[in-house]
Amino acid sequence: MARMQDIADKLGISKGTVSKALNGTANISEELQKKILETAVELGYTKKLRRQKDTEKKLCILIDNMEYKETHHFAYDIILGFRQLAEPAGYTVDVVQVTDKLQKDTPYDVFMIQNNYIGAFVMGFNFATPWMKDFHTSKIPAVLYDNYVFDNPTVAYVGVDNNEGMTLAVSHLKQQGHKSIGYLSAALGSHIMQARHKAFFHALRQAGLNADRTRARSTYMIAECVEKYLPKLLEMGVTAIICSHDQLANAAMLQCQQLGYHVPEDISIIGFDDLPFCAYTAPPLTTIRQNRIQIGKSGFHVLESLINQISIGTLLLHAQLIIRSSTGEAKTEK
Amino acid sequence: MARMQDIADKLGISKGTVSKALNGTANISEELQKKILETAVELGYTKKLRRQKDTEKKLCILIDNMEYKETHHFAYDIILGFRQLAEPAGYTVDVVQVTDKLQKDTPYDVFMIQNNYIGAFVMGFNFATPWMKDFHTSKIPAVLYDNYVFDNPTVAYVGVDNNEGMTLAVSHLKQQGHKSIGYLSAALGSHIMQARHKAFFHALRQAGLNADRTRARSTYMIAECVEKYLPKLLEMGVTAIICSHDQLANAAMLQCQQLGYHVPEDISIIGFDDLPFCAYTAPPLTTIRQNRIQIGKSGFHVLESLINQISIGTLLLHAQLIIRSSTGEAKTEK
Repeated sequence: MARMQDIADKLGISKGTVSKALNGTANISEELQKKILETAVELGYTKKLRRQKDTEKKLCILIDNMEYKETHHFAYDIILGFRQLAEPAGYTVDVVQVTDKLQKDTPYDVFMIQNNYIGAFVMGFNFATPWMKDFHTSKIPAVLYDNYVFDNPTVAYVGVDNNEGMTLAVSHLKQQGHKSIGYLSAALGSHIMQARHKAFFHALRQAGLNADRTRARSTYMIAECVEKYLPKLLEMGVTAIICSHDQLANAAMLQCQQLGYHVPEDISIIGFDDLPFCAYTAPPLTTIRQNRIQIGKSGFHVLESLINQISIGTLLLHAQLIIRSSTGEAKTEK
Repeated sequence: MARMQDIADKLGISKGTVSKALNGTANISEELQKKILETAVELGYTKKLRRQKDTEKKLCILIDNMEYKETHHFAYDIILGFRQLAEPAGYTVDVVQVTDKLQKDTPYDVFMIQNNYIGAFVMGFNFATPWMKDFHTSKIPAVLYDNYVFDNPTVAYVGVDNNEGMTLAVSHLKQQGHKSIGYLSAALGSHIMQARHKAFFHALRQAGLNADRTRARSTYMIAECVEKYLPKLLEMGVTAIICSHDQLANAAMLQCQQLGYHVPEDISIIGFDDLPFCAYTAPPLTTIRQNRIQIGKSGFHVLESLINQISIGTLLLHAQLIIRSSTGEAKTEK
């Protein structure tokens, strides 16, 4: 593990100068500071917990492409759960909304070292998020919500068990007589959408139901998904549709109703996530719950474990099927 | 959640009598105590952390079919890691070797309640272990090492990431020019052996290598495995063999040498687990490490989370490939 002295030796400068650069003191040139930070990253330098005072135990929650400021926003409770454990344990937690500009201007490791963060909890990243690639090589502890990185001992994946969730959903539908089930999904450009897509087919096969690839449709735009793909599934004769997330499920319900189908009498709909609005849709939405407070708490546990060199790779919470009124007995053949 | 009063009401006896039975006081009949315990289990009664004094925070480690008493035994370090976190946190930890007789005489939940255990860490169970079925319905927090139970919010699975491990092993062999890889395994009568078997084929397919089912062989007896199945793999022309665990890998190496093959010049061998002896075999064994101290520590973290109603389902540690001398460049065709 690289120390300040190693960085100083490599650049032929004093350790004091390195310390200034890493601790953000202003009286050195920007160019030199940049060089020192880049060398620090190259040599695998990380801020160590034991070298920091308690007031300096700083963690960050990095958010991209996700709402979190109001109680009904998806990420609100996750952050709350994280803070509920992190702050009593003596950590400072900064929530940082990362822009594309920030990510393109500053490598992830440099950002972390510059700001004295000893660990990150990362939400809302997809395959195209610029910093995503940095997690393959970074030596700074990071926990990725709903994202998986192979073979980096300081990076972990935390989320809900999508296989368990889909299996619960498909079993519930099968018990109600459904044999032809469809799937609507957001685009498969993120780990989580790929995982749920795969879990859907796995659950169908386990249940002994038709798992033909054509019964799953995915796209970037919710409008396209419900206007173009939903009717195709209905034409195929599906009696139930599982959706990759609750907003899409709600849009699908509305579209079904516009097309003259009754939910659940003609078609059953299941969402994923159990967002607060699901209890208030018409009809109230059956969905797979991920407990967001628990995700935040588990995220902190795993991050603290990584900081203490316990090399967790994956933590999955149990999924839970919340049965409301958007699912019912399968319509028998006319 | 059932209380003592509920049990008393159901049986038409006093709460004091229920308390005596649940706390093991001797002055009631065995028959009545049995009835009370069974009713407690039926009603879902569990000992609660908050009702216990610190001296009564009792956990147990249940072991079947696994050695743990000496430092070179597989389970020794797992127990050590568990204790390293549990005891400073105020828990008493009993290690209980469970016999078939105990399991057949006493249902799991009754055993836990009788002994005031608020959670269990469970090692060495397979599909045939009598108490295994009890984890599907038990409401007492339990963490199963290398065993998975679907859809019980108070039971979790902790282990190493077998997919990551197998992918690392296959990638390493592929880099050294191996194209035909075989697999020898203990019988597939446990979750972990099934998981590794599946992971082996997954890794082959990911690497674009021949994943024909005939290249994997499994059996109960190590002797049968190496005497009967190993020669078949060699006849098929494999240049490398991955084994489901280190003892089998070592037996396979010895058998190869008896048959006149040099390891790794003629055939590369990879184990799984990284037991202490792997550094001392001839040649030293390349293997996939599971860090057993970290498994114990993670097991405790997860158990404490379940006790605090954080419903973790799965925790996987990063696997690590330890490259020693039993693997080398693939032999080119004669």
